Amino acid sequence: VYRGGRLVRDVRFPTSLEQHGSDAMHTDPDYSAAYVVLDTDSGLKGFGLTFTLGKGTEIVLCAVKALAGLVIGKSLQEIVSNFRGFYRLLTSDGQMRWLGPEKGVIHLATAAVLNAVWDLWARAEGKHDTSCVTKTLCHTPSVFILFLDILVKAQEGKKQREDQMLKEGYPAYTTSCAWLGYSDQQLKQLCSDALKSGWTRFKVKVGADLEDDIRRCRLIRKMIGPSSTLMIDANQRWDVAEAISWVSRLAEVKPLWIEEPTSPDDILGHAAISKALAPLGIGVATGEQCHNRVMFKQFLQASALQFVQIDSCRLGSVNENLAVLLMAYKFQVPVCPHAGGVGLCELVQHLILFDYICVSADLRNRMCEYVDHLHEHFTSPVVIQDAHYMPPKDPGYSCEMLEESVNRHEYPEGDIWKQEIKK
Amino acid sequence: VYRGGRLVRDVRFPTSLEQHGSDAMHTDPDYSAAYVVLDTDSGLKGFGLTFTLGKGTEIVLCAVKALAGLVIGKSLQEIVSNFRGFYRLLTSDGQMRWLGPEKGVIHLATAAVLNAVWDLWARAEGKHDTSCVTKTLCHTPSVFILFLDILVKAQEGKKQREDQMLKEGYPAYTTSCAWLGYSDQQLKQLCSDALKSGWTRFKVKVGADLEDDIRRCRLIRKMIGPSSTLMIDANQRWDVAEAISWVSRLAEVKPLWIEEPTSPDDILGHAAISKALAPLGIGVATGEQCHNRVMFKQFLQASALQFVQIDSCRLGSVNENLAVLLMAYKFQVPVCPHAGGVGLCELVQHLILFDYICVSADLRNRMCEYVDHLHEHFTSPVVIQDAHYMPPKDPGYSCEMLEESVNRHEYPEGDIWKQEIKK
Repeated sequence: VYRGGRLVRDVRFPTSLEQHGSDAMHTDPDYSAAYVVLDTDSGLKGFGLTFTLGKGTEIVLCAVKALAGLVIGKSLQEIVSNFRGFYRLLTSDGQMRWLGPEKGVIHLATAAVLNAVWDLWARAEGKHDTSCVTKTLCHTPSVFILFLDILVKAQEGKKQREDQMLKEGYPAYTTSCAWLGYSDQQLKQLCSDALKSGWTRFKVKVGADLEDDIRRCRLIRKMIGPSSTLMIDANQRWDVAEAISWVSRLAEVKPLWIEEPTSPDDILGHAAISKALAPLGIGVATGEQCHNRVMFKQFLQASALQFVQIDSCRLGSVNENLAVLLMAYKFQVPVCPHAGGVGLCELVQHLILFDYICVSADLRNRMCEYVDHLHEHFTSPVVIQDAHYMPPKDPGYSCEMLEESVNRHEYPEGDIWKQEIKK
Repeated sequence: VYRGGRLVRDVRFPTSLEQHGSDAMHTDPDYSAAYVVLDTDSGLKGFGLTFTLGKGTEIVLCAVKALAGLVIGKSLQEIVSNFRGFYRLLTSDGQMRWLGPEKGVIHLATAAVLNAVWDLWARAEGKHDTSCVTKTLCHTPSVFILFLDILVKAQEGKKQREDQMLKEGYPAYTTSCAWLGYSDQQLKQLCSDALKSGWTRFKVKVGADLEDDIRRCRLIRKMIGPSSTLMIDANQRWDVAEAISWVSRLAEVKPLWIEEPTSPDDILGHAAISKALAPLGIGVATGEQCHNRVMFKQFLQASALQFVQIDSCRLGSVNENLAVLLMAYKFQVPVCPHAGGVGLCELVQHLILFDYICVSADLRNRMCEYVDHLHEHFTSPVVIQDAHYMPPKDPGYSCEMLEESVNRHEYPEGDIWKQEIKK
């Protein structure tokens, strides 16, 4: 049974000051979160969040408060014993579904609430020996009745894959070297540092200026050498024809994928781009702004993407991400999660570990995004070793923030923002 | 230049008490609006709104307030002289676009703000003899540079069509007779009244129970006779296979279209349904929850609908609706707007009149939804004569509400809600 302390808080980090996170469409993001804490009578708490870019986070808070009425007063048991029904309750309220349905602000808020429920569930399960969300997923097969055939098939070798992950971790790529707002000098330095730390997979932001892109991509390709993997990301900057011609010009640096070439809603546009770029050996990746499982179904059915980029906060938490993982498996398209921002790495690592251990059983063309920012604000930050995500060991969904960080960064009354506003 | 009075208010009507507006997915809507008033230094005001179903309207208010910073301080001239740029400013803010982009709460809020801007523009133009939005559209061709070929073509006969509309009005259909929550007796009475008032086109809500639907549809078809037009509307209740088999069972009543058979995001699902129902002579209609022009492009490209149902508040106001009208013309698919709710009829009549006079020049298979509710709260309510929308004559976009209505229905402090809460 939940009751309120402060249910949801507006936490913002002034990342725009140093151009961290800058891309062709989001030139000055302040990485932020609507941060949810569910209190329970048992004393156990559930922590969840959804990621935002600063302005407007208060709208998501407002939506979380509107959804809270559907959660408060329920017992954890009541929720998880009919999780599908609870998901529908949140997403299909007869009055609120008009505001989505299952998209935009209301769905981001749904994710924040459900992420906290999953965190709480995993912590509660901890008493019975499974404690983080990865483990809850791997060891609670009854959640997945609909797709049991896939999961039964993946039982083979499951133990070995679990051990392998504990030892080696899940492969990651880094986006930290080449944000659009970084200078060439900064980019070279970061790239050189990353290579020394064992990184072999790199993503570069492109899309604002073609000549700049050519110069930056050549520079990085030269630094990382021909055997490393390079991806490029336009953050929806182009229309379809523009995407094809622009990316063709960048084919010389041999990118594995072009990410978000155009509007996230233009499924058939992505299909046209995929078709045009296939002869160049460049795939299309998208998903961080794909607003729900039905949209992912369109992309998969239309052969509009070659890499599925799930997001732990854009989709309706674990529940909806599982549906997408299983669909991607059916279509034999690799899943390479979107991460970064605030807490996205912490959250999505659970999902991609589950994908490997229990669904895809395959690492080919698969890797999880990593951005080296803001992890210091979490009680159980991700652990990266040799460019791999090491499986989380602490209870829950890894998105509990340090109380001091929350207090300092709360908008607008935290110390950080009081100082910023003074300036 | 705008400055604030009370920028936006939460106005709700307790329609759920009598099951008005009830359908298979929205069983108890309280028709509501985020109601925007833009004050200007000139003394002129602009009135706009977006429609909602009750709960969560406060989230849209919060979003309107977040967008307000991009509007306040600008002059009308500055906005309309670069309307495309202003539209982009609202929809592509580097931090807020993450919350959409161009979908859900943030886009509903954009519509409310832009509807008020259009209202203001038309009122300001009134000084130079064009005064309502229809007229502004029909007589300001410079807005449409991109699609000038279509509009030039439609110049032929424009004057005659304008005169025809002033005389006969635009054909409407009624949804008021057959909400899902109405009894058979109520339905018969309403249908009989409507026939007496000259209605010949009727829509029935379906999707909750097949045997009920068969009984209700037969009853209505019998009452309206074989020459009247019948449409059915499932409000997204089914999956794809279910939609095909359910509607096939209702083919005997010869519906012109099945509206919203499944998830509004399932473009390829709609295409499959369209293909399966074509031999039965039943088209697919959708759009009231189609969240932006890019999604409409998908539906059109995939032959996933045979009737485009634009919504004056779901899309980004007049601007985005024009893009959809022009795309629909290119694909030669008729536009039959969604209306009803609060103020949707008042708003959308301007768009569909413009469509006929300046774009499609065609009335075949075209009609605009009409619901006979809540018009009494507007200063310039729609005028229906012999089941046709008569062109609006007052200045603006026809969505100014009576001050007393707003005060009484404001949530939660208006008298109506104080009484409801006491009960």
